[in-house]
Amino acid sequence: MDVISVIRTKRDRGELSPEQIDWVIDAYTRGEVADEQMSALAMAILLNGMNRTEIARWTAAMIASGERMNFDALSRPTADKHSTGGVGDKITLPLAPLVAACGAAVPQLSGRGLGHTGGTLDKLESIPGWRALLSNEEMLSVLSGTGAVICAAGDGLAPADKKLYALRDVTGTVEAIPLIASSIMSKKIAEGTGSLVLDVKVGTGAFMKTIEDARELASTMVALGTDSGVKTVALLTDMSTPLGLTAGNALEVRESVEVLAGGGPADVVELTLALAREMLDAAGLKDADPAKALADGSAMDVWRRMIAAQGGDPDAALPVARERHVITAPSSGVLTRLDAYDVGIAAWRLGAGRARKEDPVQAGAGVELHAKPGEPVTAGQPLLTLHTDTPEKFDYALKSLESAYEIAPAGTGFTPNPIVLDRIA
Amino acid sequence: MDVISVIRTKRDRGELSPEQIDWVIDAYTRGEVADEQMSALAMAILLNGMNRTEIARWTAAMIASGERMNFDALSRPTADKHSTGGVGDKITLPLAPLVAACGAAVPQLSGRGLGHTGGTLDKLESIPGWRALLSNEEMLSVLSGTGAVICAAGDGLAPADKKLYALRDVTGTVEAIPLIASSIMSKKIAEGTGSLVLDVKVGTGAFMKTIEDARELASTMVALGTDSGVKTVALLTDMSTPLGLTAGNALEVRESVEVLAGGGPADVVELTLALAREMLDAAGLKDADPAKALADGSAMDVWRRMIAAQGGDPDAALPVARERHVITAPSSGVLTRLDAYDVGIAAWRLGAGRARKEDPVQAGAGVELHAKPGEPVTAGQPLLTLHTDTPEKFDYALKSLESAYEIAPAGTGFTPNPIVLDRIA
Repeated sequence: MDVISVIRTKRDRGELSPEQIDWVIDAYTRGEVADEQMSALAMAILLNGMNRTEIARWTAAMIASGERMNFDALSRPTADKHSTGGVGDKITLPLAPLVAACGAAVPQLSGRGLGHTGGTLDKLESIPGWRALLSNEEMLSVLSGTGAVICAAGDGLAPADKKLYALRDVTGTVEAIPLIASSIMSKKIAEGTGSLVLDVKVGTGAFMKTIEDARELASTMVALGTDSGVKTVALLTDMSTPLGLTAGNALEVRESVEVLAGGGPADVVELTLALAREMLDAAGLKDADPAKALADGSAMDVWRRMIAAQGGDPDAALPVARERHVITAPSSGVLTRLDAYDVGIAAWRLGAGRARKEDPVQAGAGVELHAKPGEPVTAGQPLLTLHTDTPEKFDYALKSLESAYEIAPAGTGFTPNPIVLDRIA
Repeated sequence: MDVISVIRTKRDRGELSPEQIDWVIDAYTRGEVADEQMSALAMAILLNGMNRTEIARWTAAMIASGERMNFDALSRPTADKHSTGGVGDKITLPLAPLVAACGAAVPQLSGRGLGHTGGTLDKLESIPGWRALLSNEEMLSVLSGTGAVICAAGDGLAPADKKLYALRDVTGTVEAIPLIASSIMSKKIAEGTGSLVLDVKVGTGAFMKTIEDARELASTMVALGTDSGVKTVALLTDMSTPLGLTAGNALEVRESVEVLAGGGPADVVELTLALAREMLDAAGLKDADPAKALADGSAMDVWRRMIAAQGGDPDAALPVARERHVITAPSSGVLTRLDAYDVGIAAWRLGAGRARKEDPVQAGAGVELHAKPGEPVTAGQPLLTLHTDTPEKFDYALKSLESAYEIAPAGTGFTPNPIVLDRIA
């Protein structure tokens, strides 16, 4: 087996054999296949595709590159969620304790933000004392003690994917559905969850800009999960505008706590409940009532115990940015557009996100929304508030917001997108 | 400018801007763009192509990455030849001194063999004492003193191409016409020749397997040369069977000396004269008579002086392989096929070629042909003689020759391919 023949097979639109896939993933993990060879193969895959058989084998080979976790010893059924990433997508924060409060175990391995989409771990790290890095033993202990854990994936899980993901990030080969699907599913299957709900985002603020691409990605992942014995369901959800009223680390924690307290923005509550119902259904807990768990404080109780178990103080004051800048509505009418991508870029430029993996993030930075598409606005009212510790970045952030919103005359007929666009199982 | 946006442009079938091309070639030469990024771009170029404007700029940027030579001080017009590589292609050896004997200056920068095609420098190094590596000053001195020089290209010439060529070799991105054309032409234009004749090989033993691909490559290169002020012509020539009766280093030197002595195989003489006439025409020496220069010994005189000027002894005995193995004709009739690729692979396996750049080659190894397609053969007569210093390789080499030839019953109508298939100017 040699790497050039593998590259040539895909370059010339052939189908990679199981032996070729097993060999190339293993040899890449061991360093025998070089980065420049794998990136050429990744580009050939991006441009020429892989069929379902190839994607399944590719995923299996990435799982086989590392360890597999096992939650069979837990007394509860496991349920996990994965979002393909969006702006203001803090759903994991209220969702994990909510589903745990309803009787499932939620082992939520999460990532950090890169580019305009935020990362769950970055958000939780704005809580004083909270730790993302747990050993496998600590993770199991938090999970069995509280019902939920949100932490970084260990180095032992799908190391081939870790290496390949970092490579794709710097070689323009991220946007390949076979590579995205196998990357996500190799981690989730290796993690050992019994059921999985995928939140596949669609719109300007998502990787998938069209519903067709999102459907293709979702059905590929559902098939991969199902074939591996993981009960898998996908919701396609709207990412044309930010979720909720905040994009930024501490800002989103605050909003998540509002939801756990029974309040919070309607779209965040709706999506949290929709995903919770799917997770509970998939875990075989059809009688659970997540709306009740939000209302009666039991979800909040799990949240507080989960944060505390990872060293965080659930009562500590959250960091606040040193400077603010308010954008006001230039006219009265109805807000018809508030672009997710533009707001994500603004939050990123204000310091909420990172340009390189090793960069720090500002806990308090981000964008606060004072209206959502479909709502009336009055000339001069606050539309957006920008938060940062580095006010010299306001100008740069404002640039990305110049054409981020549209206001139509009052009375213009306008219906915002529904949150859940489709369901694939 | 950032490399990911450049990669994405080509990945998404866009046209690279002049600024993108200049930047990426320069940044890659300086090491700011990493190998894994350039290989992803190379694969995107291979699969999505480049138009003539992009190829011209890419070539210019590779030329600008290094120094340019200048032969204006010479009293003679310069003419150079480049072959895209084949099996038994020793034409440069008799051609350079022949064209010099007719009044042109021939600065022939050559390469080493890799894979099944031989390299001019490997062949000449079988002459005791001969040196391929010359300083620019030494090169000019040999050229002005004898009219011809065959040597390795200096490190200063198109360093971007050197780096990119080595990268393409290990990433399955060799077979891209835009990259092949720009690689060849950047070196030839930087070298400073006034005219250039391209020998674009077509057939099993060549990179280009079809006449259409060869024509596309040839016309791309002719346009690049012409636009850069180099008078450029291409001949498409047959590489379905080896050139002449030898494939191997010292074996080919011996055959080349036979041609210079007025003998040698008809196809080698025919192609040498056809290319010589094109080079002399392009150099403005229309009245020169290369057939006469072969017959009267003046080409041989230049050969002897040129070899001696680079430390070689033109009278020294050439190395001979320690072991031989003869393949005899299994039946009588007419030889209708003797495959260039299979013979090239056999010669390579016998030790004439190298698998990695740093491998040594055997001077005496190779394959000798006792008949050419179209000639009659008698059962039991020698068909091929294999030469090597490492007889344990005979079996491996014989494998590649198992279906390398076909003998049809005597009287079967058969016309071998002409040597010159087309001319593009």
